[in-house]
Amino acid sequence: MEDLNSLASVPQYIRIRDDLRRRILSGELSRGEKLPSEEDLSASYGVSRMTLRQSMTDLIDEGLLYRKHGVGTFVALQHFARDHSNLQNFFENSRQNGLVVDEQVLEMSVIPARLQVAKALDLAEGDQVVRMKTLRIVEGNPITIHEAYVSQEKFSDLAESDFTSISKDLLAYYESCGYKVRRGVQRLDARSAEPDVARLLDIEEDAPVLYKERTLYTEEGIPVEFLYCHNRGDLYSVTFILSAK
Amino acid sequence: MEDLNSLASVPQYIRIRDDLRRRILSGELSRGEKLPSEEDLSASYGVSRMTLRQSMTDLIDEGLLYRKHGVGTFVALQHFARDHSNLQNFFENSRQNGLVVDEQVLEMSVIPARLQVAKALDLAEGDQVVRMKTLRIVEGNPITIHEAYVSQEKFSDLAESDFTSISKDLLAYYESCGYKVRRGVQRLDARSAEPDVARLLDIEEDAPVLYKERTLYTEEGIPVEFLYCHNRGDLYSVTFILSAK
Repeated sequence: MEDLNSLASVPQYIRIRDDLRRRILSGELSRGEKLPSEEDLSASYGVSRMTLRQSMTDLIDEGLLYRKHGVGTFVALQHFARDHSNLQNFFENSRQNGLVVDEQVLEMSVIPARLQVAKALDLAEGDQVVRMKTLRIVEGNPITIHEAYVSQEKFSDLAESDFTSISKDLLAYYESCGYKVRRGVQRLDARSAEPDVARLLDIEEDAPVLYKERTLYTEEGIPVEFLYCHNRGDLYSVTFILSAK
Repeated sequence: MEDLNSLASVPQYIRIRDDLRRRILSGELSRGEKLPSEEDLSASYGVSRMTLRQSMTDLIDEGLLYRKHGVGTFVALQHFARDHSNLQNFFENSRQNGLVVDEQVLEMSVIPARLQVAKALDLAEGDQVVRMKTLRIVEGNPITIHEAYVSQEKFSDLAESDFTSISKDLLAYYESCGYKVRRGVQRLDARSAEPDVARLLDIEEDAPVLYKERTLYTEEGIPVEFLYCHNRGDLYSVTFILSAK
């Protein structure tokens, strides 16, 4: 901790905020670590709890700390803010951002389409679809359950292909089959993790999940892929640009 | 319940799904109502619990039912899917969709900007900002806590204005002051409701919330407004269109 008295002209909460930020970014406080209690921390800085809280609020805003109601304040794991302004390749995009990403294939199967999948892909209920389910891992943390569906008839070679090589660039694979994706329609909501989702994402049951449904289309409006994603609420966010009409 | 035997060629789970859907849409099963247990419901339809679950899964996909882990299955309240492909006026847009919307002003005050607000609005920390906090209500349910910040210097008349008339079209107000909004940058994540958020949105503590941060800019890139929104996870979703580059 630096000598706070030497910086007397800077408000206390800013000095404490800067000191906590430095300790987090330097690794002195580890990602995921629980901070000492507000009582202990305010005593060690020699300030009121209200001043300490003001410092912490700014660091929560910055995504460096998070509060767990009734438990305490923690140093946040590195948050992954995904740019959804355009369709982008997750793996390429992540690597460009200097992140270590990995993927685990959970399932690849041909099954009858249930109602929602059939509707999205413009198929009849029960038509055969290929389900491709993977777990995306960023910096060692499971972050997204990615569950994509395509028509078995449109992509008849897929089920026999080497999925681990295709899965990292599905858009390129669709294009190689004559279906160049031009746009997507996406829906996002916040929901609680069901037990199987919680297990895969290594979070508590009922922890918040950012849920996504997406359909991809060709230029002509032919639906190519329908996707469900369950993203860890504490590690994943979506950014995008809005334009005025 | 219709005579299921007369429709013997249709798979059982589809007949049950259609019957449940009809009962929900007709109001025979009310929005928010808890369904009978799976055991009772499958017995009353004369099918296995697995068949019943298949019917219910499709209705969950459609947003007509939702499962509360360890509690049961409920008829969903009407979900509000907001189109975020462009900047739109919430009140106008909702009315066009035939929804009854209302707003409650929670706060309108001039306060010093904290770090995140100051950064977003290109101000110095502690500069005066106008905080406008409202609760948006759709079809009688509180759905969004809307907390917008603007520079007090840029909008010096705002704090003395009749906020209830301005609040329903802030974009028009900004334009009337010479700041025509052209684009926004938005960030979404899923988080648990803190106690004060839960109270305002009439949900349980730690229930999922779709959280949004947004900054609006003029054509020249001048930041006009910074916004936090807390949206009820069970009633609100965001849709938008993605383009391939």
